[in-house]
Formats: sequence, C-alpha cells, structure tokens
Amino acid sequence: MPDQETIGIPLPSIAHRAREYFERLQETICVALEEIDRGFRFTRDRWDHPGGGGGLSRVLEEGAVFEKAGVNTSSVSGLLTESMALRMNVPRSRFHASGLSLVLHPRSPMVPTVHANFRYFHREDGDQWFGGGMDLTPFYPVEDDIIHFHKTLKYACDMHGPDLYPEYKRWCDEYFTIKHRGENRGVGGVFFDYLRGDLERHFAFLQSVGDVFLGAYTPIVNRRLHDTYGDRERQWQSMRRARYVEFNLVYDRGTLFGLEVGGRVESVLMSLPPTAQWRYNLQPPPGSREAKLLELLARPRNWVH
Amino acid sequence: MPDQETIGIPLPSIAHRAREYFERLQETICVALEEIDRGFRFTRDRWDHPGGGGGLSRVLEEGAVFEKAGVNTSSVSGLLTESMALRMNVPRSRFHASGLSLVLHPRSPMVPTVHANFRYFHREDGDQWFGGGMDLTPFYPVEDDIIHFHKTLKYACDMHGPDLYPEYKRWCDEYFTIKHRGENRGVGGVFFDYLRGDLERHFAFLQSVGDVFLGAYTPIVNRRLHDTYGDRERQWQSMRRARYVEFNLVYDRGTLFGLEVGGRVESVLMSLPPTAQWRYNLQPPPGSREAKLLELLARPRNWVH
Repeated sequence: MPDQETIGIPLPSIAHRAREYFERLQETICVALEEIDRGFRFTRDRWDHPGGGGGLSRVLEEGAVFEKAGVNTSSVSGLLTESMALRMNVPRSRFHASGLSLVLHPRSPMVPTVHANFRYFHREDGDQWFGGGMDLTPFYPVEDDIIHFHKTLKYACDMHGPDLYPEYKRWCDEYFTIKHRGENRGVGGVFFDYLRGDLERHFAFLQSVGDVFLGAYTPIVNRRLHDTYGDRERQWQSMRRARYVEFNLVYDRGTLFGLEVGGRVESVLMSLPPTAQWRYNLQPPPGSREAKLLELLARPRNWVH
Repeated sequence: MPDQETIGIPLPSIAHRAREYFERLQETICVALEEIDRGFRFTRDRWDHPGGGGGLSRVLEEGAVFEKAGVNTSSVSGLLTESMALRMNVPRSRFHASGLSLVLHPRSPMVPTVHANFRYFHREDGDQWFGGGMDLTPFYPVEDDIIHFHKTLKYACDMHGPDLYPEYKRWCDEYFTIKHRGENRGVGGVFFDYLRGDLERHFAFLQSVGDVFLGAYTPIVNRRLHDTYGDRERQWQSMRRARYVEFNLVYDRGTLFGLEVGGRVESVLMSLPPTAQWRYNLQPPPGSREAKLLELLARPRNWVH
C-alpha cells in the first residue's frame, strides 16, 4: 500500500486516517457478509497502480446469497486528465485518492442490490474533500424495507445536523438518475461530495454513515432471503440489472474516473452485475408488480418524515 | 417521416436521396434476414422525434437464427448540444441527420455478431458529410470467415480508389477499441466519417459499402449456423457480449449522440445484446479457443493483401 513517499505528495494525517478507516470498514463488512453467506468466502486480490499506490479487491462470486459481491479499497495517486479536472471543476494537478467502494448483487430478485462508496480526495495544492453515500436498488420493492434503509441513514446523518439527511437524500435522487430513461436507478439513500473545509467534521460524518451500512442493509437481506421466486422474477432482475449497467457505464463518475485514470479495470467494473438482459421496448403489464417498480422509479419519494 | 418543412433547414437533394437509400437498404436487408431466419419476422415501429423527424425501427427477437436483430433508420433534426459540437469539432448549430444502423446478435456463439451504420449529416450553415462502416465480432473466430468479410469490403472500397480500404480498415481498428481493456471489440471491417467535399463521390462510395453488407455477412451465417455448441460456448458468448456493452455505452459516438440528442432510447439501445455476463477477472485457460480470441483482439491484423 502507498505512503507519502510513493505518492510524491505530502499528505496530511487525515489522509492516512481515512485510508485506515476504509480498510477497517472493508474488513468488517466482508466478515459480516461471509456470516450471511455461510460457507462462501471473499477472495483477496492486491494490486498496484502504475502511477503510485494500489488497492485490495475482495470479491465473492456464485455464493448462495450473493451472486456477485465486491468490496474494494484503493489508495492511488496520479495526474488528473483534462476532462477529469473539468468534471471536478478543479485545475489539472497531481492527486491522491483513497476510498471504499462496494456493490452487492444478491442472487434472489427479492433481495435488493446495494451500493456504497466512501472516498477522500487530495490535490497537490492542498485542496481536499470527502465524498460518499449509499443507495438501494430493489427489483420487487417492499415499502418497509425502503423505510428501514432511509430511517437508518437519517439516524446517522441527524447526529451531525438536521439538514444533512434531506440535502444528501435529494442529492442521491438527483445523482442516481438514468437520464435517457427518465427514471431513477433505485429508491435512493444518501449521496454527498466535495465536502471541503472542516475536514474533521466531515470525516466524523462520513464514518457515521459508513458505520451504519450493515445495519441499513443486512436486515433487509434477512427479511427477504426466503421469499419465493421463479423464472419470471429472475428475468425481471436481469432486465433491471441492465439498467444498472446503463447507469454505471454512461453516468457514474466513479466508474468513468476509474477507467480514465487507468485504474485496475476489473476492480472498477466489479460493480457490473453478473447477468443482464436487454429486450426491445419492454413494457410490463399495467398493474403488475413489475409495473409497480417502474412507478416507484419515475419520481423520488420521501420515505421518512 | 420528416421533410424540409418539419426540419426547418433547407436540405439539398442529396439529403433526400441519402434518406431514400437508407430506407431502401433497410427493407432489402430485413427481407434477406427474414429469408435466413425462416418463420420469424421483423416488427415495424415508427416513431417521431420531438425536435423534428422520426424513424422506423425494425426488430426481430427470439428468432431461430437471430436472438436479437435490429435494423433501424432515422431522419431527425435538432440543435447540437455543446458537448456534441465539441466532439464533432463544429460550431453549435441546428442539424439534420439521417442514417441506417443495424446490429445482429445471432443465437449461436459460432456465428459472429455484426454491426453496420451509414449516415448523412447536415448543419444549418451548409456543412455536410457522410459516414459509416461495418465490423464483425466473432466469439469463436474462423480465419476464412474473417478473410471473406474483409475481402468483400476491400472489393467495395477498391472500386472507388486503392487507398480507401487500407485507410478505413485502420480507422475501424482504431475506433472499435475498448481502451480500458486494451483490446479491439472485434476483428474490424471499415469505418469512415466526416467525408466532406465531393459529396456525390462519397455517396456513391457509401452505397457500394452498404450494398455489399449482405454479401459480406450472410455467407458467414450460412457456414457457421450448424456448428455445434453447448453451455460453455453460450457462456463465453455472454461474457464477450458484456464487452460489446462496455464499448457501446462508454465509447460509441452514435450511442452517446443518440442518448444526448434525446433520440428514441429503445432504438438507440437496440444495439445492446440480449444477454451479458460480467465475471470478476475472467481469464480463459492458455491455449483454449477462448484464449485464441483474446490474442486476436489484442492487436489488429491484416486480413487481405
């Protein structure tokens, strides 16, 4: 793993503490998920980044509960390309970035897919920020599950101020939009980025959100795990996973950043689902459970008051 | 279908003739493919574009030979967005574009996927150009098939000058590169764009290429159609189709243009395969037929001399 020598940018102590936090959280989450998917284990792939630094990719495939689960940390440095700098609205410069990124694709279509990401970014002139969030993507949504997810996130946010949850919930709804489809990727969560200034405060907030990941998601897995499903539900899951692919490859900043910066491709794209299907002009029958999901994704809702 | 009144830009006669050619070619190709996939028919979906114009999408799904085949024409106008104008290296302006776009995803992994596209573009200040090409994406490549495909294209090009095939073959290899994977999407073909100036000559050239599509591709279908395959080959096809998705959503100009201009999403994304699979860090065993494909995609080759 990198230190400030290999990176070539003097890093403040918070950079090191952030990286340590991401690595600890990765371990905690993998242990808990292995507990759920008994008998299956995450692999452990360490990789180096040519520009400096590297990462640890942990992947569980073909589990009983998780068809594909990736929980990655990385800590890399390099030079921003012009288009990356433009997108971030900062000057071109050398950077250091560390973070945790996870996507869990359960086998059962009754269990929602979940994504979480936490990151720290530092530019050579000292500009630095935190970003992150998590969001839920059900195929057959159950209101109580979604409310539980959002309530847990609100709880984590409220410890740091009453405005955070509403603001970051809205940001999440905006960010995870599949523009060309006019629909949300899922039922949201929280999303925040470019948290500059009082970094200690932002880091504490980020940790609160990271720490509730398991509490927000795993109860939903346990509730839905034994719901029955058949071929129809698996097909629908596969067609909805195709939308996940569309979002990640066309819009997701993290993915495009990773591909552009020459990150380790297999780690960047571990977010992609194990299967996907594209049918032409698919329209679920009105009133069906599948149509209900589409209604839910047509516009964001408030899940907690 | 649009005419110059609905478009609001006075169009030269070549614009109308180009559109007529694309529509005629669409009909010819669909008839021929229905002949191959006996008993299955292309649907016929007409759609309107909010900015002016519209298109005709013809799709055949779940055929015996073609798992998903789309042959679309469109003729639309609108205003270039800033990023579209930047990508094309032209000023922001109103435009008219017409074209034919097809992607055929055969069911058998032994039959290559094929893509072809022909387009005419006109900007309100009179700037206009032709573009197009076709390329082959095998899963289990057979040299004779690839040579046949390229020989046919070379024949069509050579009628218009000896330099065209080598130049457009190289352009195709460069264009259909999955940069983040460091591999070609397939075994190439020809690609050309921004053919300005002597438009009549370019139009004649484009028609020669369009007219050999069936001759370049259908013999390969007929040769490979009864080759045996099993689950392993279907899996590999699905994993390679995932690369097709990566290219189309991350790099393909036509796709990004279509999504950005607010084209009809289902027609723009009909190019996406019926199925796709992402496995983490997949490496076919050395010496396997699957590994042979990867070698072939690692760098372009000359198929005809």
